[in-house]
Amino acid sequence: MKNTFGNSIHVTLFGESHGARIGAVVDGLCAGIVIDYDFIRAELKRRSPSQATDTARREDDGFNIISGVFNGKTTGAPICITIENGDANSESYEKIKNIARPSHADYAAYVKYHGYEDYRGGGHFSGRITAALVAVGAILQTALKSLGVSIGTHVLYLDNVKDREFIDFKSDVELLKNAVFPVLEDSVGKSMIDRILCAKADGDSIGGIAQTAICGLPAGVGEPWFDTFESVLAHGLFSIGGIKGVEFGSGFEGVKNLRGSQFNDEFFCDGQNIITRTNNNGGINGGISNGMPVVFNCAVKPTPSISKKQNTVDFVSGKNVELCVEGRHDPSIIRRICPVIDAVAAICACDLLAVKYGTDVFLKGELK
Amino acid sequence: MKNTFGNSIHVTLFGESHGARIGAVVDGLCAGIVIDYDFIRAELKRRSPSQATDTARREDDGFNIISGVFNGKTTGAPICITIENGDANSESYEKIKNIARPSHADYAAYVKYHGYEDYRGGGHFSGRITAALVAVGAILQTALKSLGVSIGTHVLYLDNVKDREFIDFKSDVELLKNAVFPVLEDSVGKSMIDRILCAKADGDSIGGIAQTAICGLPAGVGEPWFDTFESVLAHGLFSIGGIKGVEFGSGFEGVKNLRGSQFNDEFFCDGQNIITRTNNNGGINGGISNGMPVVFNCAVKPTPSISKKQNTVDFVSGKNVELCVEGRHDPSIIRRICPVIDAVAAICACDLLAVKYGTDVFLKGELK
Amino acid sequence: MKNTFGNSIHVTLFGESHGARIGAVVDGLCAGIVIDYDFIRAELKRRSPSQATDTARREDDGFNIISGVFNGKTTGAPICITIENGDANSESYEKIKNIARPSHADYAAYVKYHGYEDYRGGGHFSGRITAALVAVGAILQTALKSLGVSIGTHVLYLDNVKDREFIDFKSDVELLKNAVFPVLEDSVGKSMIDRILCAKADGDSIGGIAQTAICGLPAGVGEPWFDTFESVLAHGLFSIGGIKGVEFGSGFEGVKNLRGSQFNDEFFCDGQNIITRTNNNGGINGGISNGMPVVFNCAVKPTPSISKKQNTVDFVSGKNVELCVEGRHDPSIIRRICPVIDAVAAICACDLLAVKYGTDVFLKGELK
Amino acid sequence: MKNTFGNSIHVTLFGESHGARIGAVVDGLCAGIVIDYDFIRAELKRRSPSQATDTARREDDGFNIISGVFNGKTTGAPICITIENGDANSESYEKIKNIARPSHADYAAYVKYHGYEDYRGGGHFSGRITAALVAVGAILQTALKSLGVSIGTHVLYLDNVKDREFIDFKSDVELLKNAVFPVLEDSVGKSMIDRILCAKADGDSIGGIAQTAICGLPAGVGEPWFDTFESVLAHGLFSIGGIKGVEFGSGFEGVKNLRGSQFNDEFFCDGQNIITRTNNNGGINGGISNGMPVVFNCAVKPTPSISKKQNTVDFVSGKNVELCVEGRHDPSIIRRICPVIDAVAAICACDLLAVKYGTDVFLKGELK
Repeated sequence: MKNTFGNSIHVTLFGESHGARIGAVVDGLCAGIVIDYDFIRAELKRRSPSQATDTARREDDGFNIISGVFNGKTTGAPICITIENGDANSESYEKIKNIARPSHADYAAYVKYHGYEDYRGGGHFSGRITAALVAVGAILQTALKSLGVSIGTHVLYLDNVKDREFIDFKSDVELLKNAVFPVLEDSVGKSMIDRILCAKADGDSIGGIAQTAICGLPAGVGEPWFDTFESVLAHGLFSIGGIKGVEFGSGFEGVKNLRGSQFNDEFFCDGQNIITRTNNNGGINGGISNGMPVVFNCAVKPTPSISKKQNTVDFVSGKNVELCVEGRHDPSIIRRICPVIDAVAAICACDLLAVKYGTDVFLKGELK
Repeated sequence: MKNTFGNSIHVTLFGESHGARIGAVVDGLCAGIVIDYDFIRAELKRRSPSQATDTARREDDGFNIISGVFNGKTTGAPICITIENGDANSESYEKIKNIARPSHADYAAYVKYHGYEDYRGGGHFSGRITAALVAVGAILQTALKSLGVSIGTHVLYLDNVKDREFIDFKSDVELLKNAVFPVLEDSVGKSMIDRILCAKADGDSIGGIAQTAICGLPAGVGEPWFDTFESVLAHGLFSIGGIKGVEFGSGFEGVKNLRGSQFNDEFFCDGQNIITRTNNNGGINGGISNGMPVVFNCAVKPTPSISKKQNTVDFVSGKNVELCVEGRHDPSIIRRICPVIDAVAAICACDLLAVKYGTDVFLKGELK
Repeated sequence: MKNTFGNSIHVTLFGESHGARIGAVVDGLCAGIVIDYDFIRAELKRRSPSQATDTARREDDGFNIISGVFNGKTTGAPICITIENGDANSESYEKIKNIARPSHADYAAYVKYHGYEDYRGGGHFSGRITAALVAVGAILQTALKSLGVSIGTHVLYLDNVKDREFIDFKSDVELLKNAVFPVLEDSVGKSMIDRILCAKADGDSIGGIAQTAICGLPAGVGEPWFDTFESVLAHGLFSIGGIKGVEFGSGFEGVKNLRGSQFNDEFFCDGQNIITRTNNNGGINGGISNGMPVVFNCAVKPTPSISKKQNTVDFVSGKNVELCVEGRHDPSIIRRICPVIDAVAAICACDLLAVKYGTDVFLKGELK
Repeated sequence: MKNTFGNSIHVTLFGESHGARIGAVVDGLCAGIVIDYDFIRAELKRRSPSQATDTARREDDGFNIISGVFNGKTTGAPICITIENGDANSESYEKIKNIARPSHADYAAYVKYHGYEDYRGGGHFSGRITAALVAVGAILQTALKSLGVSIGTHVLYLDNVKDREFIDFKSDVELLKNAVFPVLEDSVGKSMIDRILCAKADGDSIGGIAQTAICGLPAGVGEPWFDTFESVLAHGLFSIGGIKGVEFGSGFEGVKNLRGSQFNDEFFCDGQNIITRTNNNGGINGGISNGMPVVFNCAVKPTPSISKKQNTVDFVSGKNVELCVEGRHDPSIIRRICPVIDAVAAICACDLLAVKYGTDVFLKGELK
């Protein structure tokens, strides 16, 4: 389905970095959901570059809902959101349009699109497009709220600095929505910012690991094969540029270090609910949610654009060349990717819930 | 799409562990592809339990192609393959049908299916179903061969024992098809087998990391958003029970330890082809193949079924209980999961190639 | 999606006329639905040739449910049904394998499948495959019954003989399930049978128009664009070989003869429900059900296989040749197509209801 | 998939009659296709009301391509087109927002969307949205041209006036693109216009039958089940409001009046190509194109909005009321629906060709 995603709630992305506007269409969301413009703005702001750790480029992200909303609520028809581009400087890209920037899509796109691709600022591959994802995610997070489902992402790991794990999921997730730098321990954030600024000073970039929790999901969501909860989430997450790994629960470390007797999450009944003592499976058994928070980590690669000199090729002439990527770049996208992950998680959760409980579930406000 | 997967080539799975037969339908594969019965048998054999490190249960895997093949070649119509079940002992499951085996789907399935699920041997959640996946994968690997695409998976890591990375991809991948234990260095395999037997002796189980390469793919395959090459592969892989993480290229370790200047894969032209010196991106840039081998790792969890006593609940009565899982179980599924991963990788690669080059590409035998 | 259909409930067909078995997988149907084996048998019997107006070939249609059912009820896992073939005579097809039987798929299939198609008895194009559709439809009609939805099809028109229109929909639909020849007025059936036998005597074949009603659907089902109720039904219906036209309500005649003031279905409230006085729109406005019975007609072409001599080509040699189709053929498929239409209508209705109300709606037994 | 359509080339529609803009996203079209702005404008003009037989409302249809095009050619990324609305008068709808206009979607939409729908001017159900379809269709018709495929629609029947059938398909289709009133015989057009104006004078409306030909398609396109060529076309066509019937070839009349020996299209080889003498099957056998022109008719209902007084209900209060629909309406949409049908046919043909021949087929300009 290429640029469209979802089985019951469908999201379609469009736009290029240096076009007039980018945008998204979200279809299948039921009628009667309140559009919280302030929350959309807040989520877009979390994604926009604004701090010393970000690119100097400014993204205003004034958005416009041009369909699907009437009297402040969804109508049930497709919602099209567009976001104005601005502050684009296309000239710097003209000079290097045949040069494959390492770790970027330039060369792969050239082969796929036979040289017709819009090479300016990454074109349709640009991280800029994630602003549209975030706007959609904000609308869907409001829909999820009516069912008691909330989502939050923090920077778990960056250059040997590690944030604490989630403890009280609901309040931790709440906390992250207002954090300047999305970590659960303030002191950790300061260290991480230092490391990013250090990489920036070197003309280099840095990656890290983001951790996400989806709280309040009922047990019984997802499918045994192909549309497992993990499959749907991973499908969405791996469309975010820069994410090179997705793991659930204790992930790669868990399977490396724990034997079955340690890894298995023992169930118990606390008198009212059936829950597990540990959550090494990340809230999913056999592809289906088990009622525990769904927890997953994303490996976020260092931003490809760096000022350091790199060797590469001119893919039209086939000549080997040297490249210094000019312009304003993020020394790390780890902070700004957190709201994008929240958005994708919201899309996936909404879609799976709508498949199981029907399209109107968000208007009903209960899982029946 | 629940139990169906793929955009141009669709695979549908059906069956239960203790039913008469399991099976799969693969649709959209072009006409004229030779069915290599020996190769299907060989791949099924690689998946079947047969060694000291596997369950004592025997799976014969006699398969039957009941449609879509005529005179030894595909007709273009849907291919339905069924595999007989046998050696099933349902009684042991009857006693524990309301007990949530930790890390298994039992409780999640009970909530989803309201108690109507076939609980015997994991029912439709059973790893048994992967035999059908492997049969489909074998057919598709034959189709890929005509385009020079080959796939191989080895056990990269198990309990502090590490296999070497791929060096010469094509020959390494070839090697793995005939390996008794799928590793690239023989001595490593022996150590791994020892560790598995050790866990078995403890009544416990053990996980690990599998690494896969898809060789011979052209650049330009995949989509920038949602149907990225990573998204499609991860979607397929996470439907295999027991896989809790998927990472591409240098994955989680790469993003933790490498700065941009180290992580970025520099391009160069070797006179003929544009390739990269390193492959931290796993052969994919911006969601699209760049012509390098597509390399990814899967985190395989320790088999949930162990003989050790575990605490859990009876989800009907809500009572906390103790459980010893009787029966014959794999102390590790890491060896047997390798051909399943190959199969899923083949399904994904075929689907993406058929979308881009058209359904008849495998009959043409060239990428045009 | 080729041989798979549906958004929430998916049906996949497989098999060939002269293979060992044909079959279908239906996935997405919720757990807990009783399998009414007698009803499946009864629906298969309605489709099977058994009367003077049918082919002399016999189809036993012993079916086998090999997955997805446990203790007589659906488990929620994919249901695979297979039906044995028998009484096949492949030899007669061998002689004419390169001859394009007029109105048959032979030539189109040869081009599409490059000569690898199974040409015996129409292969995967055979009307035989509709037996699998009918079995699936029977299961889904049972699911629909729990929601008060019922479906029936009668022969509205055949060679200047016209059956009456539906009057009391619910009882008329009930009546048709037990009719020997599916008409609403007995005398009409006798005349139609005479006309068919007359065509048969001439070595010729005859078509007609089938009319279907889906009763008991709630208002509000379907989408404004692309997945309109009409679109989904027509998509399914046009996959039945022999159907060359689909019209809703008063259809082609209505738009030819009625002005807007006559065509428009006036609404009124009968004190309790909002209904319409006429039903020229066939129960659908703007792509969405309006609570009236959904009524549509299908144009069923004369059976292509006739004993009369026909001119055609050998598509391998390119030579023009004469053809007499030997073997046993239906002088008209109009009677036997009625249960097939019921089955497709059931698939479409179930799918649209499951999308809107959630997958478990059939277990709940109410539209909430 | 609700408001999205297509397997390889996907079209998503959005917008409401009285919103600021409507639009569409078309995704999956390959890079390098020239955007013919004049042709888009010409097709939009054919759809826009401009003649005495149309509504007095004016639609300017200034369109804007906001993504997916660079240097005048497609980039391969999703193309988003928006069209400004204007000349909307929402007040007249405010008064009747709870009144079910007969044959309109009002009541069905109210039930589906629980009263949150945008009721002004039909909202998302408005025929206005077809302008976006036409713009997409124009782009795709240019893509089809490179493969020698062309599409044309004429008014075959209106109020006892009948146009001639297609004779020389290619030139007839060309003719229609420039016709003031889309008929093949000029005199017929004048009579049809008279009949429409006559209905208008009565405050009434009138329907008719449109006939379409797709010329230049290769044999071998389409699938045997579910994605038959007929199924895909009908799915698309029935999403156009006002179309209540679709028939292929000789359709309903053919199956009523012709026996098999007359209906069957005899094949012959004209020395070079295999073609048929008649085309009662409309160019499709067994769901697959046979190389003849694909010919189909659409039943177009009389415009629901008429000035005559009608009885209906207030669906909020449940009261029976009288309604005179004020405002400016089309006495017949038959002329304006022709380019919309062309657009849908182009979407379907492109999608089926892209599935079979791969996404780049339109850039290659040959069917290989």
